[in-house]
Amino acid sequence: MQKASARRVFAENLRKRRRARGLSQEALADLAGLHRTYVGSVERAERNISIDNIERLARALSSDVPELLAESR
Amino acid sequence: MQKASARRVFAENLRKRRRARGLSQEALADLAGLHRTYVGSVERAERNISIDNIERLARALSSDVPELLAESR
Repeated sequence: MQKASARRVFAENLRKRRRARGLSQEALADLAGLHRTYVGSVERAERNISIDNIERLARALSSDVPELLAESR
Repeated sequence: MQKASARRVFAENLRKRRRARGLSQEALADLAGLHRTYVGSVERAERNISIDNIERLARALSSDVPELLAESR
């Protein structure tokens, strides 16, 4: 099986974690200081997100960066 | 102790791993399809590197993305 791209792994983990926290995209965006439409596009793996924004989202979710980038087994 | 920023963690891990592989910044840049000066600035944590470029560097080092973002203990 081909390894998923880091973008897709992040997108999937972000969505899963956000939902587990009971947050809308808008609520997460507010917590992270980002725009709602930006969070949506990251969750669709459309954006080549930067490390600083990955970190903002991880903090907003009380998660950490390596965890959000780890492929689920 | 304050948690290091993801940028700094990545910068440090990248340098460590590159040296462990016996690669110069130029050799790593060639392997990853990036510019030597770009790799240098990433290792100084000056750049807000994108997820796609993090992945290129991880592949060039036969490492993986979460590993390069994990804080060393």
